[in-house]
Amino acid sequence: MEVTVERLAELVGGRYEGDGRILIRSASPIETAQKGQITFVANDKYKKFLKTTAASAVVLSEETECFCPAVIRHGNPYYAFALILDELYPEIEVLPRALDGTAVISDSATIGENCAVGALSYIGKMSRIGKNCTIYPKVYIGNDVTLGNNCRLYSGVVINDNTKISDNVIIHSGTVIASDGFGYARHDRGIKKVKQIGWVEIGNDVEIGANCAIDRGALGPTRIGNFVKIDNLVQIAHNVEIGDYSIIVSQVGISGSTKLGKGVILAGQVGLVGHIELGDGVQVGAQSGVNKNIAPGKKFFGYPAREIMQTKRIEACLSRLPDLFKRVKKLESDEK
Amino acid sequence: MEVTVERLAELVGGRYEGDGRILIRSASPIETAQKGQITFVANDKYKKFLKTTAASAVVLSEETECFCPAVIRHGNPYYAFALILDELYPEIEVLPRALDGTAVISDSATIGENCAVGALSYIGKMSRIGKNCTIYPKVYIGNDVTLGNNCRLYSGVVINDNTKISDNVIIHSGTVIASDGFGYARHDRGIKKVKQIGWVEIGNDVEIGANCAIDRGALGPTRIGNFVKIDNLVQIAHNVEIGDYSIIVSQVGISGSTKLGKGVILAGQVGLVGHIELGDGVQVGAQSGVNKNIAPGKKFFGYPAREIMQTKRIEACLSRLPDLFKRVKKLESDEK
Amino acid sequence: MEVTVERLAELVGGRYEGDGRILIRSASPIETAQKGQITFVANDKYKKFLKTTAASAVVLSEETECFCPAVIRHGNPYYAFALILDELYPEIEVLPRALDGTAVISDSATIGENCAVGALSYIGKMSRIGKNCTIYPKVYIGNDVTLGNNCRLYSGVVINDNTKISDNVIIHSGTVIASDGFGYARHDRGIKKVKQIGWVEIGNDVEIGANCAIDRGALGPTRIGNFVKIDNLVQIAHNVEIGDYSIIVSQVGISGSTKLGKGVILAGQVGLVGHIELGDGVQVGAQSGVNKNIAPGKKFFGYPAREIMQTKRIEACLSRLPDLFKRVKKLESDEK
Repeated sequence: MEVTVERLAELVGGRYEGDGRILIRSASPIETAQKGQITFVANDKYKKFLKTTAASAVVLSEETECFCPAVIRHGNPYYAFALILDELYPEIEVLPRALDGTAVISDSATIGENCAVGALSYIGKMSRIGKNCTIYPKVYIGNDVTLGNNCRLYSGVVINDNTKISDNVIIHSGTVIASDGFGYARHDRGIKKVKQIGWVEIGNDVEIGANCAIDRGALGPTRIGNFVKIDNLVQIAHNVEIGDYSIIVSQVGISGSTKLGKGVILAGQVGLVGHIELGDGVQVGAQSGVNKNIAPGKKFFGYPAREIMQTKRIEACLSRLPDLFKRVKKLESDEK
Repeated sequence: MEVTVERLAELVGGRYEGDGRILIRSASPIETAQKGQITFVANDKYKKFLKTTAASAVVLSEETECFCPAVIRHGNPYYAFALILDELYPEIEVLPRALDGTAVISDSATIGENCAVGALSYIGKMSRIGKNCTIYPKVYIGNDVTLGNNCRLYSGVVINDNTKISDNVIIHSGTVIASDGFGYARHDRGIKKVKQIGWVEIGNDVEIGANCAIDRGALGPTRIGNFVKIDNLVQIAHNVEIGDYSIIVSQVGISGSTKLGKGVILAGQVGLVGHIELGDGVQVGAQSGVNKNIAPGKKFFGYPAREIMQTKRIEACLSRLPDLFKRVKKLESDEK
Repeated sequence: MEVTVERLAELVGGRYEGDGRILIRSASPIETAQKGQITFVANDKYKKFLKTTAASAVVLSEETECFCPAVIRHGNPYYAFALILDELYPEIEVLPRALDGTAVISDSATIGENCAVGALSYIGKMSRIGKNCTIYPKVYIGNDVTLGNNCRLYSGVVINDNTKISDNVIIHSGTVIASDGFGYARHDRGIKKVKQIGWVEIGNDVEIGANCAIDRGALGPTRIGNFVKIDNLVQIAHNVEIGDYSIIVSQVGISGSTKLGKGVILAGQVGLVGHIELGDGVQVGAQSGVNKNIAPGKKFFGYPAREIMQTKRIEACLSRLPDLFKRVKKLESDEK
């Protein structure tokens, strides 16, 4: 695949500077880019490499100076670069569009046209797989699972019974969907498992990382909205609801029945207690512990999580706290 | 399955109010319950729905007011509801009680009567599986593993060599039992792996969530007591011991050789350092970091974990800390 | 296997006290050691058992008193004990050195001599497996993967396409290598996946625990250096680089493009933000949250992470903070 800078600029709706006829063959990080490669800068930390990069072209915002052979200007360089990657690296069909002979597929399962089901995978009774799905080797799909069109399940994914997944969903290796929720009733003579009879619903265009655990609802659904993006090793408990376009970074844990609005962002290792609500557009900083509702649009941070400005003020005070003890001691001794 | 309210009340040892002849067909969360469904309230946050629910019956404690067609009164509504779920949703045999032809089972393994071993599962040499076990498709059981009666291993579970599991144990998808502990000896010329020759012992009636990692002991056992309940994505290091009836919520990490008494509760994302002891009945709040022994019955919280009342006092002070700096500054300026 | 104390002392380059002819058959923790067993003490917490242990021999540093039948003295008892374990417990070949007939191996894959490939494993196109590798049952290796010599992949491991793994690497069950990084570009009309075209490189003598997730680079490599040891449930994001001899304890999360020098130690549940650098020899305490570069050799701790002495000073102040409020109040009332 070789594409001119001019063609790439046109493709992303940007404009180019320099020589538009330069041929681009591949993409690279700016530190290691060579002739024939394109790169980008969207984070200021990497601007320092603009002086030395050997890249043939760089995607940049309007205001950034650069002396490369070619520059593609775009108001959103990272997005433009993503479009260019799709052009330079078209999807390769890694698996034959067929059902592998070593896969175990129930007679009552239905598989849409143009699907690939890899070796040693399992598809249970009455499950319905849409069109154009790519199911890697060694995937498990239980009974009565619905999978939409154009989905991709990587090796080691486990989808337990009754899960409903919409279109264009990607699930990475080792992730478990619809394990039982953590529900027990204590009583005089011990502890009793509360049967988890709910299910999991996953919207369109969702991507879920590796080795996550998303529990089925206790009675009703655990619900992941459209365009939600979930990183690796995330825990989502029973009856959680996550609004459209939310972003859940790795190792986050969301406790049972907690509800997230649309466009919520939870940074890495955040924990949310159960039965709370986070409004649309809430953002929570890394490792925060959230123990109460958060109103729409608020940014919270800390353990326990407070409004970010409050946490930052407290943190600034903490650095000076040992000194404050000295100052109070001096006041006390002066008083005598 | 249709059951009268009268019968359900009798079953749970409670009493009913309203029309005992009402037929219940299924259960639902209170927000979405319809005619023919039963629900419950055990958390005050959900009492507000009692006014509007369309449920035919609700399980409630004595003191809660409700105008539903039928109410089942019980001192422990959540426990009563769990019993009702078992009645309304009897266990379905999802797998044939047989050894699937695509499973790979060592000749020297023994499998008790009435077991299901699903497709593409593996059972190694000399392993002994008890009666009535349900081993889903795509489970791995290594060599010399003992599994008691009535156990259930979901798809993707990995049980490595020499593990001893008792009766009525449930392990969810993706969980790994008896991986090597994290043991290395540093020396002048580098770092040497310390061979992990121990094993894992799991008591009766234990449930372990999805994608957990429970390491084998370095020399002796890692030991999970009876009736212990472990949520998803939990890390249990080598030689840890967990007392009976303990509850370990998701994403907790317990470092090597740490010992928990009976009935310990660790909330989500708690971390414990190695070689410490938590007494019977200790409770630790979410995301706490515990770095020393905790005496029986104590409630700890925070990072680092302190007695919960102390942590709460400190937290209250933190909110007022920026103001304290101002007050001290004023005292200092007044002094001049 | 029976070995004399004299022989073991010689093997580890130590010296023995007591009866060198005593036969040692196995190793045990000091609390439970019996006649014929050897144990060790390297952590002071376990010295109390020296008075009562029934072990026939103990490995100890020079200064520790002990009245056991035999003592092996060594400057690094834990390392010496590790060598003794290798002698007492020689590696058993758990799998036949052959390709199991139920494994699915691409015709274009190459497998070195003396390898074991277990049942129901999968090896994709053009992948190259070195000599003496042990691939347990139910492992997935994608396309164009390189695996060096003497590697061991436990059941449930997933190695996605284009991964490059060197010699003597051990990967425990459930770990996923080279899942897609978490990369999305927001734009006016939504959020777009940024294709992850990079790969993962793993050096020599690396060990990776169970249920970890190590993402492929976005454009270039995610790189794990030589002799790096990674515990369970660790998250390593795209383009992370980890220097040789680093130790990453369980449930750590390292965000994208962050670089660790050589010999870095991250304790359990630490989180690092993206695009930062930790110098050689940096140590970070458990559960810390690191949000900026750390210079070589520094020890950091806390949330947010500060130099450890500063965090300890602040923590000591926190315990006395409620009292400080009282003292300030008294000063204020005295002033009036």
